[in-house]
Amino acid sequence: MKYAPKTKRGADSLNKLLDAAIAVIAEKGFNSASIGEITARAGVSHGLFYFYFKNKDELLVELVRRINKDMRHYLTTSTADLPNRVEVEKKGFEAFLEWMRRNKYLYRILIEAESNNIELYKWHYMKLAERYSERLSEAMDRNEIAKHDPEVLSFALMGIADFIAKRYVLWSDGEVPGSVIKEVSNLLDKLLSPHR
Amino acid sequence: MKYAPKTKRGADSLNKLLDAAIAVIAEKGFNSASIGEITARAGVSHGLFYFYFKNKDELLVELVRRINKDMRHYLTTSTADLPNRVEVEKKGFEAFLEWMRRNKYLYRILIEAESNNIELYKWHYMKLAERYSERLSEAMDRNEIAKHDPEVLSFALMGIADFIAKRYVLWSDGEVPGSVIKEVSNLLDKLLSPHR
Repeated sequence: MKYAPKTKRGADSLNKLLDAAIAVIAEKGFNSASIGEITARAGVSHGLFYFYFKNKDELLVELVRRINKDMRHYLTTSTADLPNRVEVEKKGFEAFLEWMRRNKYLYRILIEAESNNIELYKWHYMKLAERYSERLSEAMDRNEIAKHDPEVLSFALMGIADFIAKRYVLWSDGEVPGSVIKEVSNLLDKLLSPHR
Repeated sequence: MKYAPKTKRGADSLNKLLDAAIAVIAEKGFNSASIGEITARAGVSHGLFYFYFKNKDELLVELVRRINKDMRHYLTTSTADLPNRVEVEKKGFEAFLEWMRRNKYLYRILIEAESNNIELYKWHYMKLAERYSERLSEAMDRNEIAKHDPEVLSFALMGIADFIAKRYVLWSDGEVPGSVIKEVSNLLDKLLSPHR
C-alpha cells in the first residue's frame, strides 16, 4: 500500500474498496477479478484504487495483512480470561471454526494467495506461528502444557484446526456437529495435557 | 478424460503430455498455462490434447486423480509389513514428507485445484480420508490405537502432516531436521497410543 488514509472519510472509502475486492476475488478468483469491477462494486473511482495500490498484487498483500490481524485479534479476544492454556486451546479451536464460518470468503483470499503469491501465504502462517509459539512456550514454562518444540507444536495445532475447519465448515453446510468438537477437544487434551 | 489410451505408445504420449502439463502449471499457475505451451513442452501435437481432453479443466481432473492414486500407493507401499498402526502412522508421516520433497510440483497442482476447482480438491481429501478412516477404524477394533471418530482423527492427522510438510519441506531448503520428525513422532504417540 502506497499511503495510509489520513481521514475517517479516507479510511471509509479504503474499507469499501477492500470489502469489494474480497467479494469479487472470492467470487471470480484473483486472476479473473478486474480492478474495474472492484472499484465499480465499491462505488469508488478507478483513480482511488491507484492512489492506494500500484497493482492488484499490492492489494492482495494488504488483504492478507488485514486477514492476519483480524484472525489474531478474534482468537485473542475469544480466549481472554481463561484460566490455563489447555482451555485457551480448546476455546481457540472453537473460535477458529466460528471465524471460518463467518469468513468463508476471507479464507478464499488465503487460497488465492497460496496460488498467486506463495511468499505472502507463507508470511501469514509464519506470523501466526511466531506469536502462537511464544504463547505455547510461556505455557510450557508455567507447566500448563506438556513440553514440545513450540514451533512444531504450533504448526501441528494449526494443521488440525485448518483441516477440521475445511472438512466440517467450508465443505459442509450447517453447524459443526457437537461430537466433532468434543473429539477434537479430546485430541487437544492428549497432545497438551502436562500430566500424561 | 474422453478416452483411455489403448496401446503402450498411446500411454507413453499421454504421460508425456501430463508431465509437461504438471511442469507448465507448476511454473505459471493454472490460469496462465496454455494448452499450446503444454503440448509444445511435451513434443506432441495440439490435436493429441483434444483427443484426450475437452479442455484444461478436464486435464486438471485427470492430474488430481493421478496424484491421489500416486500418493496413496506411495504411502501404502512405504508402510507395508509394519507390526502395528502406531508404527504405520509414524512411518507414513515420514513417507509423506519424502513424497512432498520429491513432488513439490505435484503439491502445486493441488494448490491450483483448491483455487480453480474446489470440488476436485475436496474430492482428493475426502477420498484420502475415506480409505484412511477405514484403516484407522480397523486398528481401533484391534486395540492398536485409541478409539476416536475415525474421520475426525483422519483429518486431524492429515492436517498435522500437511502443515508440518508445508513448514519444513515446501517452505524450507534442505533436509527436515531429525528433531522435528522426533517431535511429531511423540505427538502421534500421544494421539494414538491405546495405553494412555
